[in-house]
Amino acid sequence: MRRLMQFACIALMGACTPREVIFTSLDEAAIRQVLAKQQESWNAFALEDFMSGYWKSDSLTFVGSKITKGWHATLQRYRQSYPTPDDMGRLTFEILSVRGLASETALVTGRYTLDRKSDRPTGLFTLIFKKIGNRWVIVYDHTG
Amino acid sequence: MRRLMQFACIALMGACTPREVIFTSLDEAAIRQVLAKQQESWNAFALEDFMSGYWKSDSLTFVGSKITKGWHATLQRYRQSYPTPDDMGRLTFEILSVRGLASETALVTGRYTLDRKSDRPTGLFTLIFKKIGNRWVIVYDHTG
Repeated sequence: MRRLMQFACIALMGACTPREVIFTSLDEAAIRQVLAKQQESWNAFALEDFMSGYWKSDSLTFVGSKITKGWHATLQRYRQSYPTPDDMGRLTFEILSVRGLASETALVTGRYTLDRKSDRPTGLFTLIFKKIGNRWVIVYDHTG
Repeated sequence: MRRLMQFACIALMGACTPREVIFTSLDEAAIRQVLAKQQESWNAFALEDFMSGYWKSDSLTFVGSKITKGWHATLQRYRQSYPTPDDMGRLTFEILSVRGLASETALVTGRYTLDRKSDRPTGLFTLIFKKIGNRWVIVYDHTG
């Protein structure tokens, strides 16, 4: 059936695409796993590991009080905002929703909280995930 | 060709979908038009007209300092936050980027500014637009 479908799509010169536009519970689980690993990396003060949850591209977009473009600039922003383990504190992500927007695109809403010695910053975030090279990564992050 | 394609897709029991996954400059123009109309409505203090840019659904999501779900609750939130023309001020949207995520889904980043008598609040926003019933509407708004 799948071969027949592929043949038909080729025969129609790309006018059809296989319907793989279904966002599954496996996709959701993979995305939750990326965020769980980010939380773990942050709490080990391993900022580069934390950054592996983001698309390593100049097109990565981070929207905070200003817009930061690119993976390296985003890492730099984190380094400047959280220079020491005390600044980083202990991160908790609360995932409020994970929605498929397309087969390989998802929208995540959540809350971050940093437990630190002197304060407890918290805020809502919106993430766009894309499945790139068989891996779900954050391509767009609006935090705050 | 189009009929042939549709026939083939039906014959394959929905295994193919027509490839209409192209986000065009017409889509971008339609989205910019929705935001231009929102700005105009706001500046006429016509909050219900402003709200016509949003998906009229209980699934509409507004992320600010907290999460508001649903079109009516979002209108209510605007009414409470901006009870008078002086609170509303004069709105300017600056559209920073419009990106297609799928054929009928787009991601918009922008800045709002309110010129008011006593202050000038401004902030970045992230919007998810969907084309629903042949109309582009905001289904998700993260502002602030």
